[in-house]
Amino acid sequence: MTVENRRVSAKSDRAGGPRSPLYARLRDELAGRIAAGSLAPGEKLPTVRALAKERSINPMTVAKAYAQLADMGLIHARAGSGSFVAEHKTVSDVPANDGGLSDLGSISSRLFELAHAPGVIAFTGNYPTAELSDAFAYAGLLEKSLSARQADLFRYDPPAGRDELREALVPFLAGHSIAVRPADVLVTSGGQQGMDIVARHLLRPGNCVLMERPAYFGAINVVRAAGATPISPDTPTGEIDLGQLPQLIAERRPKLIVVNPTFHNPTGRTMSLEQRQGILDIALRTGTPILEDDHCPEIRFRGEPLPPLRALKGGDQAVYYTRGFGKAFIPGVRLGFLIPPAKAMQGCLDIKATTDLQSSALLQGALADYLNGTDWKAYIRRVCSMYKDRQERLYAILQKHLGGYAEIDLPDGGLSFWLRLNDAMKAGDVYFNAVRHGVSFAVADSFSPTRDRQSAIRISFGLTRPEDYEEGVSRLASVLRNAASTARTHSMAGV
Amino acid sequence: MTVENRRVSAKSDRAGGPRSPLYARLRDELAGRIAAGSLAPGEKLPTVRALAKERSINPMTVAKAYAQLADMGLIHARAGSGSFVAEHKTVSDVPANDGGLSDLGSISSRLFELAHAPGVIAFTGNYPTAELSDAFAYAGLLEKSLSARQADLFRYDPPAGRDELREALVPFLAGHSIAVRPADVLVTSGGQQGMDIVARHLLRPGNCVLMERPAYFGAINVVRAAGATPISPDTPTGEIDLGQLPQLIAERRPKLIVVNPTFHNPTGRTMSLEQRQGILDIALRTGTPILEDDHCPEIRFRGEPLPPLRALKGGDQAVYYTRGFGKAFIPGVRLGFLIPPAKAMQGCLDIKATTDLQSSALLQGALADYLNGTDWKAYIRRVCSMYKDRQERLYAILQKHLGGYAEIDLPDGGLSFWLRLNDAMKAGDVYFNAVRHGVSFAVADSFSPTRDRQSAIRISFGLTRPEDYEEGVSRLASVLRNAASTARTHSMAGV
Repeated sequence: MTVENRRVSAKSDRAGGPRSPLYARLRDELAGRIAAGSLAPGEKLPTVRALAKERSINPMTVAKAYAQLADMGLIHARAGSGSFVAEHKTVSDVPANDGGLSDLGSISSRLFELAHAPGVIAFTGNYPTAELSDAFAYAGLLEKSLSARQADLFRYDPPAGRDELREALVPFLAGHSIAVRPADVLVTSGGQQGMDIVARHLLRPGNCVLMERPAYFGAINVVRAAGATPISPDTPTGEIDLGQLPQLIAERRPKLIVVNPTFHNPTGRTMSLEQRQGILDIALRTGTPILEDDHCPEIRFRGEPLPPLRALKGGDQAVYYTRGFGKAFIPGVRLGFLIPPAKAMQGCLDIKATTDLQSSALLQGALADYLNGTDWKAYIRRVCSMYKDRQERLYAILQKHLGGYAEIDLPDGGLSFWLRLNDAMKAGDVYFNAVRHGVSFAVADSFSPTRDRQSAIRISFGLTRPEDYEEGVSRLASVLRNAASTARTHSMAGV
Repeated sequence: MTVENRRVSAKSDRAGGPRSPLYARLRDELAGRIAAGSLAPGEKLPTVRALAKERSINPMTVAKAYAQLADMGLIHARAGSGSFVAEHKTVSDVPANDGGLSDLGSISSRLFELAHAPGVIAFTGNYPTAELSDAFAYAGLLEKSLSARQADLFRYDPPAGRDELREALVPFLAGHSIAVRPADVLVTSGGQQGMDIVARHLLRPGNCVLMERPAYFGAINVVRAAGATPISPDTPTGEIDLGQLPQLIAERRPKLIVVNPTFHNPTGRTMSLEQRQGILDIALRTGTPILEDDHCPEIRFRGEPLPPLRALKGGDQAVYYTRGFGKAFIPGVRLGFLIPPAKAMQGCLDIKATTDLQSSALLQGALADYLNGTDWKAYIRRVCSMYKDRQERLYAILQKHLGGYAEIDLPDGGLSFWLRLNDAMKAGDVYFNAVRHGVSFAVADSFSPTRDRQSAIRISFGLTRPEDYEEGVSRLASVLRNAASTARTHSMAGV
């Protein structure tokens, strides 16, 4: 192998700038090449002496760079035989987007890997960082709770959830215009589990389910896992058309309509009140249940809050309302809830118990304390003000660099942008090239309920440092510039 | 209502004995009657003055008893209209065993309610109490972990589980004769979720699954939830007969064999090494996968540990091995793992992600610390020595009081006994009467994969105080005495 002296575009959190010491620049150059895959797992690195000679630098400098790469887990030394690129999770493990991304386990694993791959600026996290969220407030309550009532929290609890949490959810939900009693609420291990329970309760193999296009991949996967087939409205934007809906229901008889009305994942759209009411009315008239995935209604930067479908007249009859606490309050807490129509509670409860018996009593106890004892509305004002600023800053940068290649809307809330690329560009190719250029995001294929290829990408900024926005977006711009030029060439050649 | 002055058999933790003050005896008498259902939810109690007159006691005594019942949440006073029995979760909410008990959500809820119903001695918990388990050690590690690496624990993790935990499981499993790499292990939200993932991965509606009879209700429910039909070997004990197994597989083509070889729940049986090897060999030969549910192999009181099927030659090809940490180590921790055959890992991972995205990073981090940093083998020696003593004590009491009504084995480990009642007794009736007499347990119907009625009950002693053994068992004895006499009468009458 020859490590030629070239510029490396990848830049990690630890990146040495031009004024960094030489060893740091060498370290980051090599980390970037490992990230980009041009140094492959298992590949042998030149000896310290050989690289020092090639670069005309001090062997101690190379040795120090190698030592730090080893500390970072990116390379390892085998006694007597030299240094090798680690068989480690890096971006080189991430294959081209070949459709396999539609498997949820793979998507989640890869988004995680990309977010942590060295040298890559990741626009993959659509939830707040621990530091900006109420995670540490929750941690403090969990510690208190562990000291104060240990024995009570280490036991098997009823599958519906702890009474204290179900009670604490009543005023929380009232603040979202939803009037329920504690017995109407089923505690779940995150919003994902709520959706999965609904799919298992309502769907049988061969059923069909109406989903917006695009749709959240977690929702698509629960539908497919139940053996059902997603269908989408035949509208330009993939949104449900109230005029067409009755006929669509009459013809295809979907067993469920899935909606994500506020700060839709991935598009960021918010459904109007008329649309909410209209879908609910038709659902009630046709006896079609609705799964309402309301992932982070609190993360609103502008405009007035709209009531969820569950809060509208008749919503208690037709709507299965579900959400988690990870997207807005406590990232990764893995707690959420499901409010099914009353007649479906027992069936959902049995599935919850079959799935995992119950959600952690420890985590539930502390979440009850959090909802009861903290001013979570003040937290929401704080986190929204910080992320509003970030959203606007990133929007300006996206417009500046990518305005020529993609349509970009400014959502009223949520931590993502949806970029609709010029048609000729293949999002899969763009994705693969972008990762190799040190920027990552989620691609439209993962969000396609009907498996058709869309030319769009989701840019999420929950975890991205604002100082990386400009660099990340300009990396993406150069990838899109190439893709556009390739597309034009192909188009001119009639390919 | 008249509260006539009769003896009450129910006895609560707070029970006033014959030398207790009069108010305490009155309080416990009323609590017992509420527990037994003869004072129904919503029923009006006599006024303090009326009851005092009826019993010829001081009104202050009645007032004090009422006040304490109100503190216990059993009754409540409505201003101006008197005191009423609370609409509370008490045994009176527990309906007769009408077969609805086969719903897992209902079983779990009811076992929980029974375990906490006032006045009832519950033999329902087959896991150690927080105080006797390593729960507090775990709580300490969780607190440390929260302080030391908060940000790292509040995020979305990969669905397969945290690397640190998967790595910590390798030596743990080696101690159970199972040789794996971290990548072979999928972290689950408890053993129940591992079973559910296997069922969803392997089963389709209409498939058939071979299960021992009786079998753990959680296993039965994952099979049914997948739309599959459990079948059982046609043997007197419900165990798998190696001679019949090849033909059974050829005829019924089960897509899965479910076994629970060590301290079987509910029977307590332990499968011999020959039987383990024999089932595995036939499974390998016929290409039939095995789900091995190994809930608490460490809770062994006598005899030598036997390797799980997964540890035998070829086990890595055929066996899906799953367990949780709640039954032996940290009650209610809701963490476990699944080791599928290598070729099934990706499929199981996708289902894990569909189910709940990932298990809590917080809980996983502390469990890794627990496995790495504590002498869990010393804990197991301690907890086994305590529960061995309890098991033997309770066994003697069961033999003494119930020997005439039931066959009772002494299992080599685990926290349950399985009582096979004389055939003529209906376990469902016994259960209902027992609850009314202030003693509870789980009945055979819940453990029947083929929905046939068995005349057996499970007595679990994980949570029961040893000083309640004698009283609880003698309550059960009186119920069985009545049931036996009824059965004889019916039998003589030709009913």
